[in-house]
Amino acid sequence: MGSTTRRLNIGFIGFGSFAQFLAKTMIKQGHLIRATSRSDYSAHLGPHFFRDMDEFMGLENDVILICTSILSLSEVVKSIPFHRLKKPTLFADVLSVKEHPRQILLQEVPEDSDLLCTHPMFGPESGKEGWKNLNFMYDRVRVRDEDLCSSFLRIFETEGCKMIEMSCEEHDKLAAQSQFVTHTIGRILSEMQITNTPIDTKGFEKLVQVKESTANDSLDLYIGLFIHNRFAKQQMKNLEGALQRVKGSLEAKMEEEDGRE
Amino acid sequence: MGSTTRRLNIGFIGFGSFAQFLAKTMIKQGHLIRATSRSDYSAHLGPHFFRDMDEFMGLENDVILICTSILSLSEVVKSIPFHRLKKPTLFADVLSVKEHPRQILLQEVPEDSDLLCTHPMFGPESGKEGWKNLNFMYDRVRVRDEDLCSSFLRIFETEGCKMIEMSCEEHDKLAAQSQFVTHTIGRILSEMQITNTPIDTKGFEKLVQVKESTANDSLDLYIGLFIHNRFAKQQMKNLEGALQRVKGSLEAKMEEEDGRE
Repeated sequence: MGSTTRRLNIGFIGFGSFAQFLAKTMIKQGHLIRATSRSDYSAHLGPHFFRDMDEFMGLENDVILICTSILSLSEVVKSIPFHRLKKPTLFADVLSVKEHPRQILLQEVPEDSDLLCTHPMFGPESGKEGWKNLNFMYDRVRVRDEDLCSSFLRIFETEGCKMIEMSCEEHDKLAAQSQFVTHTIGRILSEMQITNTPIDTKGFEKLVQVKESTANDSLDLYIGLFIHNRFAKQQMKNLEGALQRVKGSLEAKMEEEDGRE
Repeated sequence: MGSTTRRLNIGFIGFGSFAQFLAKTMIKQGHLIRATSRSDYSAHLGPHFFRDMDEFMGLENDVILICTSILSLSEVVKSIPFHRLKKPTLFADVLSVKEHPRQILLQEVPEDSDLLCTHPMFGPESGKEGWKNLNFMYDRVRVRDEDLCSSFLRIFETEGCKMIEMSCEEHDKLAAQSQFVTHTIGRILSEMQITNTPIDTKGFEKLVQVKESTANDSLDLYIGLFIHNRFAKQQMKNLEGALQRVKGSLEAKMEEEDGRE
């Protein structure tokens, strides 16, 4: 990739806490940010916030970044007035599942606009000290304007992210094993109401951290990870099976010990 | 507690990896270490290792430190030739459950010897950079020789441990919620064969660490945490219940979403 830095006009669709977190670094880098959303963020962005999506789509954004929740993606994308676009635009998304937005975007975005599916594997908590060495996954789903796509990816490269090019399918397979399982364990620990004790081990301290970081994420995100990643259901079954095997091995050993005494 | 340092003769019963880990720091502090064990550790300790427990018990140890596995404690303690003791001795243990050794030691150790139940909440892995700020739990079960008991506790104070005095019962309640749950999650993750991926989140990295540190501990330790901590069974039930509730909330939401489309 080239090393020239290009100032981009980036339009956000959806401007919740994750979008705001990304926008902060983009603004720092000198890019121009605008946003539209079903909620009102004019207090955050002043004249750069657009309630009217028709107006937003006519702004000649270089990149339109989809930052909706997983659950609302389909409805929001289907409501975008694409005919207002004045030029081909790079559509990118940052959702935590990838096959689902890939499919919706391929279906809805006009053929002359490019598509880039991405997943920054971090958030306001893990990225609060900067993005250095944090993972950034992307799939160049439909890219003709190489220069524009590279300029957008450079936002993350510049901050020191580990750039990982990977298919959306491979992402969803791996994320079901890693991110979805992590959220599931975090929610189980929340349900158990585990908290720090005066006699924590180092391992337990890590579990409390996992619980707390999961509790900061919305339930809708977790539900989205499950419903819109076709590999998640199998991981839930694996987790249940593993728990039953661990419990079974304890019970078998307990009977053995009882027999010995 | 006073600040004088007293050189102690410390006899270990059981000399596995955790005992060796503790002994290393005790030797560094200038204490004299001897050990007896059903396995042969003469290669480690030379003339300070005693295969013959009668001889070991006649050595005038100040402290006898029980470092058996949880599962073998009862059998080992019942086989100790206490009549060989030449003087009252402080018996201490370092097992990861506390009510069980407390009960066995109260039952078996001669009335004129003192009893201290302890649990260093760390091991060769978490304590490899030193013991500073690591938790050390203890219960002065039967202490008359205050000076001797303080001298032994000072080994851990000197290294910077957080000293936590707590009843054995309270320990077992808290450890069932923390250490036992941590080992259970670690073993579940092992059963699921989770491993690092190119797109790990910070939270998932922590779970992999929990899995790996659990895998370094023996299955016998885990079984001991379950069988000999009367609060562990309830925590296993809590974990199963929490998993079912998390799964139920996903399934309910999925039906809702299906109905909407």
